[in-house]
Amino acid sequence: MGQTLTEKILDDHLVEGELETGEEIGIEIDQVLTQDTTGTLVWLQFEALGLDEVQTELAAQYCDHQTYQFDFKNTDDHRFLRSAAGTFGAHFSRPGNGICHNVHKENFAAPGKTLLGSDSHTPTPGGLGELAIGSGGLDVAVAMGGGPYYIEMPEVVNVRLEGELPEWSTAKDVILEMLRRLSVKGGVGKIFEYTGPGADSLSVPERTTITNMGTELGATSSLFGTDEKTKDYLSRQGREDEYVELTPDDDAAYDDEIVIDLSDLEPLIACPSMPDNVVPVGEVAGETVEQVIVGSCTNGGYEDILPAAKMLEGREINKKTEMIVAPGSKQASEILAREGWTAEMMAAGVNFSEATCGACIGIGHVPASDSVSLRTFNRNFEGRSGIEDDNVYLCSPEVAAAAALKGEIVDPRDLADELGDLEDPGFEMPDQYDGSKADLIAPDEAVDDGLIKGPNIGDVPLKDPLDAHLEGEVHLKMDDNITTDHIIPATQDILMYRSNIPKLSEFTLSRVDDTFAERALEGDGGFLVAGENYGQGSSREHAALCPMYLGIEGVLAQSFARIHKANLFNFGLLPLTIDEETYGKIEQGDDIEIVDDVSEAVDSGQEEFTIRVNDDWEATGHLDASERERRILSAGGKLSLTRQQYKDEGTGATPADD
Amino acid sequence: MGQTLTEKILDDHLVEGELETGEEIGIEIDQVLTQDTTGTLVWLQFEALGLDEVQTELAAQYCDHQTYQFDFKNTDDHRFLRSAAGTFGAHFSRPGNGICHNVHKENFAAPGKTLLGSDSHTPTPGGLGELAIGSGGLDVAVAMGGGPYYIEMPEVVNVRLEGELPEWSTAKDVILEMLRRLSVKGGVGKIFEYTGPGADSLSVPERTTITNMGTELGATSSLFGTDEKTKDYLSRQGREDEYVELTPDDDAAYDDEIVIDLSDLEPLIACPSMPDNVVPVGEVAGETVEQVIVGSCTNGGYEDILPAAKMLEGREINKKTEMIVAPGSKQASEILAREGWTAEMMAAGVNFSEATCGACIGIGHVPASDSVSLRTFNRNFEGRSGIEDDNVYLCSPEVAAAAALKGEIVDPRDLADELGDLEDPGFEMPDQYDGSKADLIAPDEAVDDGLIKGPNIGDVPLKDPLDAHLEGEVHLKMDDNITTDHIIPATQDILMYRSNIPKLSEFTLSRVDDTFAERALEGDGGFLVAGENYGQGSSREHAALCPMYLGIEGVLAQSFARIHKANLFNFGLLPLTIDEETYGKIEQGDDIEIVDDVSEAVDSGQEEFTIRVNDDWEATGHLDASERERRILSAGGKLSLTRQQYKDEGTGATPADD
Repeated sequence: MGQTLTEKILDDHLVEGELETGEEIGIEIDQVLTQDTTGTLVWLQFEALGLDEVQTELAAQYCDHQTYQFDFKNTDDHRFLRSAAGTFGAHFSRPGNGICHNVHKENFAAPGKTLLGSDSHTPTPGGLGELAIGSGGLDVAVAMGGGPYYIEMPEVVNVRLEGELPEWSTAKDVILEMLRRLSVKGGVGKIFEYTGPGADSLSVPERTTITNMGTELGATSSLFGTDEKTKDYLSRQGREDEYVELTPDDDAAYDDEIVIDLSDLEPLIACPSMPDNVVPVGEVAGETVEQVIVGSCTNGGYEDILPAAKMLEGREINKKTEMIVAPGSKQASEILAREGWTAEMMAAGVNFSEATCGACIGIGHVPASDSVSLRTFNRNFEGRSGIEDDNVYLCSPEVAAAAALKGEIVDPRDLADELGDLEDPGFEMPDQYDGSKADLIAPDEAVDDGLIKGPNIGDVPLKDPLDAHLEGEVHLKMDDNITTDHIIPATQDILMYRSNIPKLSEFTLSRVDDTFAERALEGDGGFLVAGENYGQGSSREHAALCPMYLGIEGVLAQSFARIHKANLFNFGLLPLTIDEETYGKIEQGDDIEIVDDVSEAVDSGQEEFTIRVNDDWEATGHLDASERERRILSAGGKLSLTRQQYKDEGTGATPADD
Repeated sequence: MGQTLTEKILDDHLVEGELETGEEIGIEIDQVLTQDTTGTLVWLQFEALGLDEVQTELAAQYCDHQTYQFDFKNTDDHRFLRSAAGTFGAHFSRPGNGICHNVHKENFAAPGKTLLGSDSHTPTPGGLGELAIGSGGLDVAVAMGGGPYYIEMPEVVNVRLEGELPEWSTAKDVILEMLRRLSVKGGVGKIFEYTGPGADSLSVPERTTITNMGTELGATSSLFGTDEKTKDYLSRQGREDEYVELTPDDDAAYDDEIVIDLSDLEPLIACPSMPDNVVPVGEVAGETVEQVIVGSCTNGGYEDILPAAKMLEGREINKKTEMIVAPGSKQASEILAREGWTAEMMAAGVNFSEATCGACIGIGHVPASDSVSLRTFNRNFEGRSGIEDDNVYLCSPEVAAAAALKGEIVDPRDLADELGDLEDPGFEMPDQYDGSKADLIAPDEAVDDGLIKGPNIGDVPLKDPLDAHLEGEVHLKMDDNITTDHIIPATQDILMYRSNIPKLSEFTLSRVDDTFAERALEGDGGFLVAGENYGQGSSREHAALCPMYLGIEGVLAQSFARIHKANLFNFGLLPLTIDEETYGKIEQGDDIEIVDDVSEAVDSGQEEFTIRVNDDWEATGHLDASERERRILSAGGKLSLTRQQYKDEGTGATPADD
C-alpha cells in the first residue's frame, strides 16, 4: 500500500509509535517558529531547560502581533526576544518585518521538513510541502531542546481539486468553500492533502492561502505536494536548492476524500461571525461597508495585494469607506513600493500600514460601532475585531477592493459590468522576490550579550521532582465549572503580564477569591479543591503554571476538563479525582496529607491514593494518567522532565548550568 | 511708525480693542482647524450653539492623533467628525491622510489670514505668513460660529537671522538654538517674527519647522514674511493664486530683538526631558540608541524625510536600533513612495508607518524600558513617550538617520568622515506636490445625512442664564490645592469619554469622593467649597463643564487658579472667594443661599455677595470679574452667551432650532 504525503513526511521523522490513525506518535521537529505574544514564555521555558543552544535545524522568532508597541512592555518583549534569539541561536525578525507565517514562507519553509510553531496558523507552509503544526508554547520549547513532538496520528483526507478557477474567483474561495461544506469543526483530528489537476494549477502563494486558513476547519494541518510550481516559487525567492520533490503515492490510502471543481466556484464571503458562515457574495450585496482591510497571513502577500492595487489604480475608494492595507511582510511592502503600487493605493485613498497582524487580532483599526467591516483575514469570531457585536465579513482581496470602491458589498463581476473598464486583475508573482533581508537577523549576526529582560519579564519557575510526602492546607475550595478564565483572567490588563509569572500569579483565581494568591504563596505547598469540570475553557498553560508558581502541589476535584488536566501534568501538579461525598466534607483551611509515598506510587502506576484530612478522617483520590503523563508528573512537569532527559540521555545539548 | 507683520495682520482683523501690548483685543478668524482628540467636543459645542453652518471662510477637521483606532470609540469619533464636518460645512481629512498641521499647510494655509486651532502646534502656517494661534476647543467653536477671538495683544519680537545654514545644519537647529537661548518659558506672551537674510534663505518647509516648534518656547505664535520662496511653495502646491506679499515695514517697532547667525549653527540635540535642554550633538555622542523615529508635524514633510532616505540608501540601519518613519501627511508618503524612496527606506530596515501623530503623543512605538529614543519631534517631556523615566532626544532627520546607521548618537559630520561616502543630503522640494486629494472631503462632497453619534458620543449641555436666586447644598468640601486632575482625572481609561459628558461627569472629583457625582446629579443645584488655589493644573475645560453638567451652580473657595477661574466663567459657574473663617465654618451638607439677586448683581458689577448658611448665619463672598466675564457668567456661560448673541445681533447665521 502506498503512502500519503503526510505518511511520507511522518515516516521520515518518526521517533516513537506507529503511523496508525489515533495512535500517539513522537516526531522529530526540523524547524520551529514563535511570535511575540507566545514567544516570550517559550524562551523563558527554553532558558529554564538549561540548554546553551537551539537543537532544531532552524528556529525563528518573529515580532508581528504587537508591532504598534502600545506599551513599553511590548517593546521590551521585542528586545527580549531579539536577545533570546541571539543567545540561543534562532533567527530574529524585527517588528515591522512582517507576520511570522509570511516571513517564514518567504525565507525558510522547505518541502519535506517538519515545523512546529506557537501560533495556530503555523500550517501555512503546507503549501510548499512542509508538514507544519501549531502547538502550545511548552511543546515548542521542548522541541527546540531537541525533544520529540507527540501527537495522535491524524486521519488523512484527500481533497481532490478538479478544473481551474474562473475569472474573479481565487484561492480564498477554495478554502471558503471547504468551510462552507465542512464547518469549523470539520477538520478536527485531520490533515487535508490537496491533490488533482486543480491543485496543480495553483501557485505556491495561492496554495498557502488555503493551507493557512485550513486552521479554521480545526485541522491539524494541510498539505500540497511539490512540483514545478513549488520549484518556481523557491527559485523566485532565491532558494531553488531547497526544492525536494514530494508527491503522494498513486495508491496512497486516504481516510476520506472530498472533491471540489474549481470551475464551479464563484466569489464567496464568510458572514458574521464565523468563518464557515459562507455564502456567494451576491447574496449579501448592497450592505454598506465602512471599513475594508486587505492583509493578514491569509491574504497579505504581494500576490494578494497586487490585484487590489490594480483594481484601485486610477480610481478612488468610496468616501464613506476607510480602506487599510496591512501587508503580511516587508518583502511584500518593499516590492509593492518599488513597483509604484503603494503610491497608487495611497492615491486611491488607502491608509497603508506597517506589516503587522494588527487588526486581525483586534489590535488597531477596530471597526466603528454598528458598522460592517470587510476583511481578507481568516477569522471573524464575534468580538475578535475589538468591539462586541461586530459585523466582520471575510473575503478575497478582489471582493474587498470592489467593496471599497462601491462603498457596499458587491460581487466584483457585477461591479465590472457596472464600471465597464474594470477587469479581473488576475494573479501575478514578481520575477524575483528581491526584498531586503535587513530586518532578519541570523544567529551568526546576533547583537546582544545575553538576555535583556525588562522589568515585566520574569523567570519561569522550574518544579522539583514530585515529593514522596505531600501535605498542606486547602487554600481554596471552589464550586463546579471553574474555567481557565477564573484561574487566570484573559483581560488585556492582566494578560500583559504573560511573560512575568510572579506578577501574573498575583491574579490567580482572583475572580473566585482575591486573597488566594497571597495566602498560597505564603503557605508552604497546599491544595486546591473543586467540584465538577475543573479547568474548562481555553488551553491556557498559565492556568497550571501560575498555581504551580504559588506552590500548589495538587488539585482534588470531582472531575477535570481534558486539556487543563494535561496542563496540570505538564506543570507537575497532582490531579486527583474525589467523589461527591469527599468533596462535600473537605473544607477550605483543612489540612490534607497524601498518605502514600506519592512519588513511588505515581511511578508504579498506582491509581488509588489515600487522602488524610486534618489527621482525622480519610478518603480516596483517583489518579487517571498514562505512563507518559506519570513520567512527566513524577519529574515535576514537562520542563523538568525534558531537562532531566537531556542530562541523562544526552539528547539535545549539555545543560548549561549543571 | 511702521507696522510689524503681526500688527498688519491683526489690524486687518481687529473687531475690538487696540493694538497695544497687554490690552485685550478681539480679532476675526478666517480659518479654523480641529483634530480628532479635541474636535469631537468642539463640534458638540458648535451643535449646541444651534447654527446651521460654519461661519469662517474655512474650517477643517483632521484625524491624526488616534489613527491606529485602538478602540471602537476612536473609530466612532472619526465617523462622527466626518458627519459633523459634512453637516456644518467643514473640510474633512480622513484618518491616514496626515497630521492637521501638515495637511493644512499643504492645502489651506494662506498669507495674511488668521487661523485658530484646537491644537498647540497650530502656529505652523506662520511659515507662510498666516497668523495662526492655538486655543481651547470652546474658543474654536465660538470662532466657527463667527464670534471674535479674544487675546491680550502680545509682545512682538524680531528674530533676525543672519548668514546661511552650513552643511549638516538645518531649520531644526534654528529652533533648537532659540530654545537653548530662551528656554521653554522664553516666548510666553510673545509673537516671534523671523526676518533678515537668513530668513530669506529658508524655504517654506524649513520655515514651518521653526514656526511649528515655536510653541515649545511658550510663544503665542511665530511668523515669517512672504516672498518668492512663499510664492514658489504655493505654486508647487498648485495654489499660487493664494499668494499675498506681506512684509514688516522697514521702520516697524519691535518689543525686542534677537540675532542668530545661521552660519554659526552646528547640529544640535535636545536632551531628556525638556525641549530646551539643548546641546551640540557631539556632546552626547556615543550614547546607544535603541529607537529612532522620523516624522511629526515638525519634521514629517517630504523635505524632512527625503534627507534621511538619502542617507539610508544602499545602507542598513544598525541591528540594535529600530527605525520608524511616520510621515506627516499622505501627500509626503505618496510622493516618497512614487519616487522610490519608501522602498529604499524599507530595504534599509525602516518600519514605515501610517501618517499619524502616533508616537509623538505616546500612541504606539513606546520606547523600551531604560533605553534611548531619538526623535525628530517637538516635545520630550518626561513620560510623554508612554513610559515613565524615558530618555527621549529631539533632533533633525539628519541626526536621527545618522544615529540609526551608527546605533548610537553621532554628529553626522563625524559619521560622514567615518564612512567616507556619506554626503550632506541637502534640502530638496518636489517640482510639484502632486499627491492625491482622495482623503480630503470638501464640504460640497459631504457623504452623511446629519450627525452620526456612536454610543460614546453624547450632547454638550447648555446652561440657562444665571438665576436671580441661587440656593443649594454644599455637595463637597475640599482642602487646598485641588487640581484639575482631581476634578477630572486625565488617565486614558477616563479621558476616552471626553466626547461623552454625561459619562465623563460620573468621574468628577471621584479622586476626592467617589459618591460626589451621583449626589450632585440627584441634588437640584448646589455648591462646591474649597480652600486655597482651587483648580490648579491644566487648562482642561472639562473640569468646569462636568461640574456644570452635574448641576453645580457655584464654587466658594479661598482662592482660584487663574485658568480654571476663567473656565468657571466660560461654563457659567459663579466663583466666589471666601475668607479662611468662612471656609472653616461651612460644612459639607450645609444649605447655601445667595441672598442677593444674583443675576442683577453680576450684571451691575457688584463685588460682594451675601452668603446665608443653613438659614442661620451669614458670610461674604467676593466676585472678581471683568465686564466681559460678567456678561459670560450672566448668560450661563460662553456657549450660551454666543448663542444668544447670534440670535440678538444677527452675528453669524440664524440659530437652527429656535
